Amino acid sequence: MSDEFDVIVVGAGPAGENVAGRAGRAGLSSVVVEEELAGGECAYWACIPSKALLRPVELAADARRVPGLALEPVDVRAVLARRDEAVSHLDDGNQVKWIRSVPAEFVRGRGRLRGPRQVEVTAHDGSTRLLRARHAVVLATGSRPVIPPVPGLAESAPWTSRQATGVQVVPERLAVLGGGVVACEMAQALHGLGARETTMLVRGHSLLGRMEPFAGELLAASLTDAGVRVRTGAQVTGVERPRPGGPVTVHLAEGAPVEADELLVATGRRPATGDLGLDTVGLPDTEPVRVDDSMRAGGVADGWLYAVGDVNGRNLLTHMGKYQARVCGDVIAARARGERDDLPAMRDTADGYGAPQVVFTDPQVCSVGRTEAAARAEGFEVRVVEYDLGAVSGAYLLGESYRGRAKAVVDERRRVLLGVTFAGPGVAELLHSATVAVTAEVTLDRLWHAVPSFPTVSEIWLRLLEEYGL
Amino acid sequence: MSDEFDVIVVGAGPAGENVAGRAGRAGLSSVVVEEELAGGECAYWACIPSKALLRPVELAADARRVPGLALEPVDVRAVLARRDEAVSHLDDGNQVKWIRSVPAEFVRGRGRLRGPRQVEVTAHDGSTRLLRARHAVVLATGSRPVIPPVPGLAESAPWTSRQATGVQVVPERLAVLGGGVVACEMAQALHGLGARETTMLVRGHSLLGRMEPFAGELLAASLTDAGVRVRTGAQVTGVERPRPGGPVTVHLAEGAPVEADELLVATGRRPATGDLGLDTVGLPDTEPVRVDDSMRAGGVADGWLYAVGDVNGRNLLTHMGKYQARVCGDVIAARARGERDDLPAMRDTADGYGAPQVVFTDPQVCSVGRTEAAARAEGFEVRVVEYDLGAVSGAYLLGESYRGRAKAVVDERRRVLLGVTFAGPGVAELLHSATVAVTAEVTLDRLWHAVPSFPTVSEIWLRLLEEYGL
Repeated sequence: MSDEFDVIVVGAGPAGENVAGRAGRAGLSSVVVEEELAGGECAYWACIPSKALLRPVELAADARRVPGLALEPVDVRAVLARRDEAVSHLDDGNQVKWIRSVPAEFVRGRGRLRGPRQVEVTAHDGSTRLLRARHAVVLATGSRPVIPPVPGLAESAPWTSRQATGVQVVPERLAVLGGGVVACEMAQALHGLGARETTMLVRGHSLLGRMEPFAGELLAASLTDAGVRVRTGAQVTGVERPRPGGPVTVHLAEGAPVEADELLVATGRRPATGDLGLDTVGLPDTEPVRVDDSMRAGGVADGWLYAVGDVNGRNLLTHMGKYQARVCGDVIAARARGERDDLPAMRDTADGYGAPQVVFTDPQVCSVGRTEAAARAEGFEVRVVEYDLGAVSGAYLLGESYRGRAKAVVDERRRVLLGVTFAGPGVAELLHSATVAVTAEVTLDRLWHAVPSFPTVSEIWLRLLEEYGL
Repeated sequence: MSDEFDVIVVGAGPAGENVAGRAGRAGLSSVVVEEELAGGECAYWACIPSKALLRPVELAADARRVPGLALEPVDVRAVLARRDEAVSHLDDGNQVKWIRSVPAEFVRGRGRLRGPRQVEVTAHDGSTRLLRARHAVVLATGSRPVIPPVPGLAESAPWTSRQATGVQVVPERLAVLGGGVVACEMAQALHGLGARETTMLVRGHSLLGRMEPFAGELLAASLTDAGVRVRTGAQVTGVERPRPGGPVTVHLAEGAPVEADELLVATGRRPATGDLGLDTVGLPDTEPVRVDDSMRAGGVADGWLYAVGDVNGRNLLTHMGKYQARVCGDVIAARARGERDDLPAMRDTADGYGAPQVVFTDPQVCSVGRTEAAARAEGFEVRVVEYDLGAVSGAYLLGESYRGRAKAVVDERRRVLLGVTFAGPGVAELLHSATVAVTAEVTLDRLWHAVPSFPTVSEIWLRLLEEYGL
């Protein structure tokens, strides 16, 4: 078994897998190193299981809005079984098989840089193996949840997204620390699956703080209507859990403490750069691995080090990691062959426009590009148009009391879209129209001729353009 | 009350209303003439009620695919009540109010051309009024269903889309003549709402014959699975209904006759040009009113006659009629003021690309642009890519046994999309991404950077582009 490869990929999440796939397609040999499961966080403990849990909750909400439909109580056991199936019962056999089919070698163990072009893999039994890369080492180790330094919190054995998405018994009382995507999605999913007392403790003054304000407001209203308590401006001062597995008490700077059966911490994630051996190649291991638009790390002689996905800190989103991986794999192959390495597909331009993101709550929330605030801060000549989604026939037909909103941020100088946000039931698939428009910089005058089909929710596009004055 | 206006619009469906709206916005005075209800076919007897009937049936199908969800039997009475609400109980008060708010005058009655720039309106009481247009007369009278000349058919008082969408008592046994959009949608809706024996009699060999063949095949399989009998190659030789309101028997060239409680004829529509007075201005009244890309009718001296929507035969789709109406209203205003009349918004370019269309069945079927067959027939250098929608994570997460397919037709010379078709649950809102890509002629190399959010069905875009070789 050779220990030299064209490419070494550390981390077999979606990003790492895609680097190997693209490099392999171009004829390079590669090895993929993974300490846990091939497929990564997304496949077992994040996107996939969370959506499997959210889908029945979302459909139940959709059905409640349609007169004539009535659902029997959700069979939670069946939902969890479907989730288990969606995560392949935590068996990565098929993923490993896919990696080998690239073809690429798969090595289970912890990968650490050991100087230029070298990665030492420590297997679970403690044995080590030194791998050498002819062309590139790619870091794709993802990110880890952040546990804030609150007295007693770490000791209370809180849930992170892993325990929440892997839930076996839905707690009666659930406290959720955070107001971002994971906090909102899991609060809604677990509440819908039986967590009767669900309390969100949000430090800021709104949910989904990085998106347009109306999105978080609509979501907060929906969660509240469903019975979730959303406490904004909540400053957690301490956590107590006297008995392991027993109730946990969350103390706040203001107001009554919250007692719960489980506490989910969803306050963000940090690139997984620690214990990666970055010091052996002269890079800091306390911050993201900074890369250029070809995903190549800065500050490394001969430019053999790359980083894709969460670990480079550009965007902590699976699809952006995969996108970067495609760029990276293609670039490495071109450079290995001494070919042109600056073709359009070999640069990450999408992150610059602002990554698309979908929050799979009820209402769904999705956006691409810049928010109004971001666009103004960057000095664009901005004009904004907004419209009530519920006033579109296609939305009205989805159900009674449809509530939603859309906002477009226009670059007045070029008459192109800088950002678009939709919030409302059934908008998740609508986002890609905005992603195409923003990324391809389609002018408003051209979008005017892209006629939305009647009666779909997509007709919001017509309304936004009319509102703009077309 | 003056009888002279800048613009006379005959027909107050969505197209007619939009002409008045755009003309009014530009400061022109207009009058809208409508024999039936302001709002038109779409609002009372087509798009709106059909979707109101289909929504619960679609959601029920979605729910059946999600383990853990179980629906109680659909409450048909509640569904019909919601449908009645959606069609405003056939009261056009709000629509008339909207027209007046343009501002425009609304006149109820049958409008007929009476020579150049003149329209005579015959009210329901038989009184007449002559209207004169300073600038333009716009025909927006829509279309009428075609009843094929089958012996006994017309005499059997068959349902057309109006009776089907306005259903008060769902027939136990329903026969449907036709295999197009209306036939498929109404067969599925009424079957889902209780028509236990639903039989589709399709003359051709597939459903949705104008779309990519796989779309009709997937839909036929789904209808059949649900218990609808789909008889293709069915040649109806005669219809008998001895007793009004009693059972109807449909005789076929081959196979057993079909007995049903109601027979729905959905074999197409024809532009409503009859009895419009077209002969008084020298135009034939047996064919669509031919128009140029500014919606102006040919063969009329001084070019004062326009036609928008179904009546011009370009595309029998509400959203295209509305689009044409926006073009038309803007053009008339520009010409009335002696301003430039060739701005981009003043030409119908969308119909040339191929109109988007959504079929709201289970699976949903939608397409924009050209089919492979059409593109080849027009001489494009075509390459086609297809992909199994069910293999996309976002689709898998929508439900078990997800079945769907996508196809893209590429113009190899320019590397742009000529057409896209999606068939599968949850794709209706995804279509607009394709509509933008086709209409704006976004190159595949640019689409590569429009990253679909994970895990949505939109990731089909990535798969199609990879399949193409990107």
